[in-house]
Amino acid sequence: MRTAFYISDGTGITSEVFGHALLSLFEAEFDHITIPFVETPEKAEQVKQRINDRYKTTGVRPLVFQTFVDEQLRAIINSSEGSCYDFLSAFVEPMQKELGVLAKPKTHRTHSIHEKTYDFRIDAVNYALANDDGSNLKDYAKADIILIGVSRSGKTPTSLYLALQYGIKAANYPFVEEDMDGFTLPPALRAHKAKLFGLTITAERLSQIREQRRPNSRYSSLRQCKLELSEVEAMYSKERIPFLNSTTLSIEEISAKIMAETGLKRQKY
Amino acid sequence: MRTAFYISDGTGITSEVFGHALLSLFEAEFDHITIPFVETPEKAEQVKQRINDRYKTTGVRPLVFQTFVDEQLRAIINSSEGSCYDFLSAFVEPMQKELGVLAKPKTHRTHSIHEKTYDFRIDAVNYALANDDGSNLKDYAKADIILIGVSRSGKTPTSLYLALQYGIKAANYPFVEEDMDGFTLPPALRAHKAKLFGLTITAERLSQIREQRRPNSRYSSLRQCKLELSEVEAMYSKERIPFLNSTTLSIEEISAKIMAETGLKRQKY
Repeated sequence: MRTAFYISDGTGITSEVFGHALLSLFEAEFDHITIPFVETPEKAEQVKQRINDRYKTTGVRPLVFQTFVDEQLRAIINSSEGSCYDFLSAFVEPMQKELGVLAKPKTHRTHSIHEKTYDFRIDAVNYALANDDGSNLKDYAKADIILIGVSRSGKTPTSLYLALQYGIKAANYPFVEEDMDGFTLPPALRAHKAKLFGLTITAERLSQIREQRRPNSRYSSLRQCKLELSEVEAMYSKERIPFLNSTTLSIEEISAKIMAETGLKRQKY
Repeated sequence: MRTAFYISDGTGITSEVFGHALLSLFEAEFDHITIPFVETPEKAEQVKQRINDRYKTTGVRPLVFQTFVDEQLRAIINSSEGSCYDFLSAFVEPMQKELGVLAKPKTHRTHSIHEKTYDFRIDAVNYALANDDGSNLKDYAKADIILIGVSRSGKTPTSLYLALQYGIKAANYPFVEEDMDGFTLPPALRAHKAKLFGLTITAERLSQIREQRRPNSRYSSLRQCKLELSEVEAMYSKERIPFLNSTTLSIEEISAKIMAETGLKRQKY
């Protein structure tokens, strides 16, 4: 199997995203190796040796995705026997031309602490945790968004992703069975109606997920899941609450769709 | 201010990462606009119009970072008056040559659900929540890693990031004041010593963070913070538990360093 190296003088996150996006265009399997924080020429020489060794032992040239900001380190990696893809270099020149200024590379600017944005995210994570699963109705005034839906429809992971990725304060409120009798929007939610965003899911998938949690229970039965979902979806429509079906979507896709549909502004760049 | 557009037929996450990495090389401020899920020629034409309008109203050419997989959509955006940076196209050809196969572009492959990896992440998020703040000692056998440290040293956001980004099951255990008297490693932790990873932080920063939570308390006093940290750091050294100082690091950096130092393998690509 061919090896894909992701190498950087920072976290390696950018080179991973960059490499994965490119590899996803090809139908092949790769052996992935991330090497972050390569911050000295000595370390870079070791990595170069590792790439060359890998070439020798596997017989296929490793792919190397790198996002070094430091030119000396970048040159060491590019002198390896790997097939090197260096996207910062490729685009810096046209961008300099367009912006009319020279780049001032500085290591760690991408995923390091930014004064303005750091506290937003920690705050948002703490907010999501304190307002998970309807535990803290009185804090809804501070929410950027309140995710609603039946149990196990994806609210919690989505609220945490919105916090970490976008610095968004997302509360979440689960409808429990007791809500379902003569179902109307609970008053605590009605007071913040403009912030509500619904999640739904197919009954089959919900039953499957609940089955893992409480096997052979009424809670996980297809009948119960169908009942809860039809009540909740009818309420979304009646109250004109925007919602989406999370069944075939990843947490990233759910979050990006919510950001796009609500027009929320991310607190972090 | 110049506008930077991040446009994609998927979540836009890749184009954001790609664009931010490039913009971080320049000392300038930008107005950021992300437009995800541009999946039809009609939508692409609207976006093109929006780029052209922005050029007209601001007088400076917008930067456009795009990661379209669909060729027709990509061409529409590239025909706008923005300064377009299209990193997939730039690298596909050399990669095809190296791999000896043609790319088979498929939309949504990067950030969509992968059968094998999705449950890992949801499981890992649920695990992190159930094992946050020492709440569930009996589950430590299932942990990939157990983060330890004093209250507010960064354990919870890091455990959630490890779950969402890498699919890693991270428990976390906070040392409370009562632990500090004649401080030794609690038995519940000693049983899983190989999984322990310590966090620490400077007393000044810790006091600042705690002050936001409980102003003018003994908990947030510099004296108390110094005391707790010196006890905990002495224990890390005595027990040879790997640890890092989170003071100047972002959640991404802490997580990437932990992954690199422990050799943990990500469960998600």
